[in-house]
Amino acid sequence: DEVRVAILTVSDTVAMGAGPDRSGPRAVSVINSSSEKLGGARVIATAVAPDDVGKIQDVLRRWSDIEEMDLIITLGGTGFTPRDVTPEATKPLIEKETPGLLHVMMQESLKVTPSAMLSRSTAGIRGSTLIINMPGNPNAAAECMEALLPALKHAFKQLRGDKREKHPRHI
Amino acid sequence: DEVRVAILTVSDTVAMGAGPDRSGPRAVSVINSSSEKLGGARVIATAVAPDDVGKIQDVLRRWSDIEEMDLIITLGGTGFTPRDVTPEATKPLIEKETPGLLHVMMQESLKVTPSAMLSRSTAGIRGSTLIINMPGNPNAAAECMEALLPALKHAFKQLRGDKREKHPRHI
Amino acid sequence: DEVRVAILTVSDTVAMGAGPDRSGPRAVSVINSSSEKLGGARVIATAVAPDDVGKIQDVLRRWSDIEEMDLIITLGGTGFTPRDVTPEATKPLIEKETPGLLHVMMQESLKVTPSAMLSRSTAGIRGSTLIINMPGNPNAAAECMEALLPALKHAFKQLRGDKREKHPRHI
Ligand code: NA
Repeated sequence: DEVRVAILTVSDTVAMGAGPDRSGPRAVSVINSSSEKLGGARVIATAVAPDDVGKIQDVLRRWSDIEEMDLIITLGGTGFTPRDVTPEATKPLIEKETPGLLHVMMQESLKVTPSAMLSRSTAGIRGSTLIINMPGNPNAAAECMEALLPALKHAFKQLRGDKREKHPRHI
Repeated sequence: DEVRVAILTVSDTVAMGAGPDRSGPRAVSVINSSSEKLGGARVIATAVAPDDVGKIQDVLRRWSDIEEMDLIITLGGTGFTPRDVTPEATKPLIEKETPGLLHVMMQESLKVTPSAMLSRSTAGIRGSTLIINMPGNPNAAAECMEALLPALKHAFKQLRGDKREKHPRHI
Repeated sequence: DEVRVAILTVSDTVAMGAGPDRSGPRAVSVINSSSEKLGGARVIATAVAPDDVGKIQDVLRRWSDIEEMDLIITLGGTGFTPRDVTPEATKPLIEKETPGLLHVMMQESLKVTPSAMLSRSTAGIRGSTLIINMPGNPNAAAECMEALLPALKHAFKQLRGDKREKHPRHI
């Protein structure tokens, strides 16, 4: 009953080899150290994509449709610059929106800094895969994961269609 | 000036007669006991539908387009399991989104339990009917209604085009 | 490095000359008195449109595509009455949604009054122009602007593609 996690760093700079990926390794370490709380989560794939809708979508499709990940986290490309297109790449691939996850990430991030309001992250379900955009800043992404921890384990059980999980408190 | 309310319980289990409808009667009782605060609200129809987009939409269309309800509340089908499709059934029928209602329901529900973040509820206006998804859990749905009470009476006046209600504080 | 701002009052009453525009002048004064915090903001255009999707969109298109404003604020038409269509006029013109701005405006407005939940405001980016719906009530609109002040200056730098602004805290 392993929870399969994949992490996609979205960054022109990292993709062209012009700078190190600071976000990806940090996210891997947050997932690994929270593995038990997440129902046995393990990062089994990581990748880097440039800020390009088609290239981001290629990875998201492969990880959800073919490799059947339980969770895909994207890092970066959620701001206001012309190159920030991660939400635009993600939205067309989502079959069911999960606005509560966005609400919690935003609510908790705003407690740290008002500039959190500039995150344009989206989140939702494709097949049985949960896809969540997070900011490229490693601390900000870690705060977002922390905010979701209390409910994600339960989310994975529901995504797998566990009937006993169908009528918990509040769903 | 009665406010006409309809309650739709969405549940495969209840629809096939394999279990009792705990959510519907509780919602009826919350509406009735808040009738005055809601401008004279009265539940004049209830129904049960399975977790099926077409069947949910049939009821929503009849209640909004033909029976001209002021408020339709759906209960259930808002979680992460494969059968949860109430928001997907509701969204295509909505003409005007009402994101503030979702914000308040989420904000207040999160104060009760972090698993509230797994609600995928949507809400909006079709014609002069306000449609709001709420969770299937009776306590959770009651909390959502409680959160909306301070503004719903005013919402119904606006939906009916009352000009005196056009420029209240904050609209 | 001036930040170019345009203010659109949306109101049948004002458009037909049947009442004064109380929202527009107040918004101009808030922007002007916050000019420095906003990176040198100056209101360089104002207009009035009736509650009509086509007429609202004509102004939004001209101000974003031809006059290349940095910020367009619309005032009014965000409530639940049949004539309130400002969000419906705005959404089809938006290329990138900015949900965090809506979250902050809603969160802060709800601290003032629960009827804030009836705002249906949307916000997003078209080209390099940020478009934000605000309520027609002058105090409510002022509170919304106040809520966004801590991050807007940074938003404009990102919209202009300033690379040094690409990886701030939380984006
Ligand atoms: Na909040």
